[in-house]
Amino acid sequence: MKIIKYESFKEGEDMSNWIGVDIGGTKILGALFDDKGNKIKTEKKSSKSSKGKEKVIDQLKKVLDTLLEDSKDVKGIGIGVPGVIKDGKIAFTPNMPLNEFNLIDFVKEEYKIDCFVENDANASMYGEWKFGAAKGAKNAVGYFVGTGIGGGLILNNSLYRGSYNFAAEIGHMNVYPQGPLCGCNLRGCLESLSSKVAIQREITRKRERGEKTVIKKSDLKNIVKSSTLKSAYDEGDKVVRSILNDVAFYLGINAGSIINLLNPDVILYGGGIMEALGEELLPIIIETAKQYSIPHIFDTCEFKLSKLKDDACLYGAFSLIQEKVGA
Amino acid sequence: MKIIKYESFKEGEDMSNWIGVDIGGTKILGALFDDKGNKIKTEKKSSKSSKGKEKVIDQLKKVLDTLLEDSKDVKGIGIGVPGVIKDGKIAFTPNMPLNEFNLIDFVKEEYKIDCFVENDANASMYGEWKFGAAKGAKNAVGYFVGTGIGGGLILNNSLYRGSYNFAAEIGHMNVYPQGPLCGCNLRGCLESLSSKVAIQREITRKRERGEKTVIKKSDLKNIVKSSTLKSAYDEGDKVVRSILNDVAFYLGINAGSIINLLNPDVILYGGGIMEALGEELLPIIIETAKQYSIPHIFDTCEFKLSKLKDDACLYGAFSLIQEKVGA
Repeated sequence: MKIIKYESFKEGEDMSNWIGVDIGGTKILGALFDDKGNKIKTEKKSSKSSKGKEKVIDQLKKVLDTLLEDSKDVKGIGIGVPGVIKDGKIAFTPNMPLNEFNLIDFVKEEYKIDCFVENDANASMYGEWKFGAAKGAKNAVGYFVGTGIGGGLILNNSLYRGSYNFAAEIGHMNVYPQGPLCGCNLRGCLESLSSKVAIQREITRKRERGEKTVIKKSDLKNIVKSSTLKSAYDEGDKVVRSILNDVAFYLGINAGSIINLLNPDVILYGGGIMEALGEELLPIIIETAKQYSIPHIFDTCEFKLSKLKDDACLYGAFSLIQEKVGA
Repeated sequence: MKIIKYESFKEGEDMSNWIGVDIGGTKILGALFDDKGNKIKTEKKSSKSSKGKEKVIDQLKKVLDTLLEDSKDVKGIGIGVPGVIKDGKIAFTPNMPLNEFNLIDFVKEEYKIDCFVENDANASMYGEWKFGAAKGAKNAVGYFVGTGIGGGLILNNSLYRGSYNFAAEIGHMNVYPQGPLCGCNLRGCLESLSSKVAIQREITRKRERGEKTVIKKSDLKNIVKSSTLKSAYDEGDKVVRSILNDVAFYLGINAGSIINLLNPDVILYGGGIMEALGEELLPIIIETAKQYSIPHIFDTCEFKLSKLKDDACLYGAFSLIQEKVGA
């Protein structure tokens, strides 16, 4: 991506600000940062994805306008988007009406401010690596377990994007060849067994088989909330506990494979499910990974829960634009 | 690893030579190279692994002595070894009596020549990347399918070793959670389903069940030869064809996962099984990988058979020592 330095950005100025944005299927989060990564101000809006592209862009503008109100000399805007980013454009975003949208050009034209766009899981991993639980790692692998499962890779101290920017689709690695059909139309992907979509499918299936659970039909109307699962888990709900055990098992099998392949020093877990249930699931993940990795390699890997949680993508997006423009 | 420049290596000399060595469980291969990577001379000895450490070292010395006979100014010796290399030493080599042996110090003391030691699959992948089928790739993944399955990773234009030099154990990635016990004591590793050990186990099992095959009991006395499998395949042997179909299927599943994770531009297959049966197995591997990877990522990946074959490790070992010492 070519970064244009606008003339308004004079070098040698004492203070400058940056904006990090996380565009998600349900909400748009934004934050204003100073040069050192201190978060000065935040803003949040519903993304209104179901109402189409123009509405999502309106919501983004509202977030940016609010953040820009009191700030001075914003040198750049970094944005994380749940999709495939190619040459700085959104090439494909399955859960949002922004396919083929040139977000960078839009921001540059609208605000005359430099912009960088990155896949949200990549940005989150970058945030955790710069400011969070993976700080200082040489090689780190991130799993972001929510409705789907995103991944991010830090390899040899930099964000790994692969040959064509498509890397880190960790949720679509196979963990069970004869496993369930995944939303991506593959079979037995990690996402088909350990995501919230998988949890929802299994709860529905078990309810229909007559198994008793505190999860109500109304909880499953939209995708089940992580907090609802956490309450059910704490109440000792057998259906939810059994399903979450499987979720952690498949996450652990994949972690074992990743350890053998990449010998990372850190594996990190974020996303809604892990934020709500990380303490419960992590021990099962670790024990399973141990069963599916070579002992001397397993021993060099630390397992961590996200530190930045919902803010990981914001921090990563901020860091990425700051590094591109030059602090 | 600290490389000591010996005084005998004067800079500015016109010509120099390098030695690459491949220490394997059954044979030790060595070659003398010129600065440009032309192979001047080769030497081969049985490694006599069963006769213990001293014997293996004797055999290595014979190979090196022969290569050094007519050469002048050998600037370095690169060696590939089937094991885990840690701080330049052989930390662990399951199939050879060289555990904990400091091969670098031995060569430096014995020959007063600089030495570099690398895992053999890493060295082979490096050779293929510098001189072979993966030349020019930004990100490439190598599978070396023989008695076991070794792996090598080129990521962002360099050999990827992981945080503690343990990376690329691709043969021990899980491809089937309830799969067979692997030699490493994990379950369902790629190696437990797609290596020559797995093929041998399946042929034995099927023979004992009374299934008809041209593979004789005597063929299975030691590990079955790749050439024997190739002949059986060509004769249309149903047992061998069915087993090799499964071998390729699991290799393909893993390739699909690797594509989704790393978005490599090249996946390369070497090792005895692929040298003998690559043309037959590759189409099945590719078709399976396609079924287990995201289409737009799959489309960016080329599948290749090893070009350097048995010489891959030699070329890689030569390249690695040359780069360490400086050409």
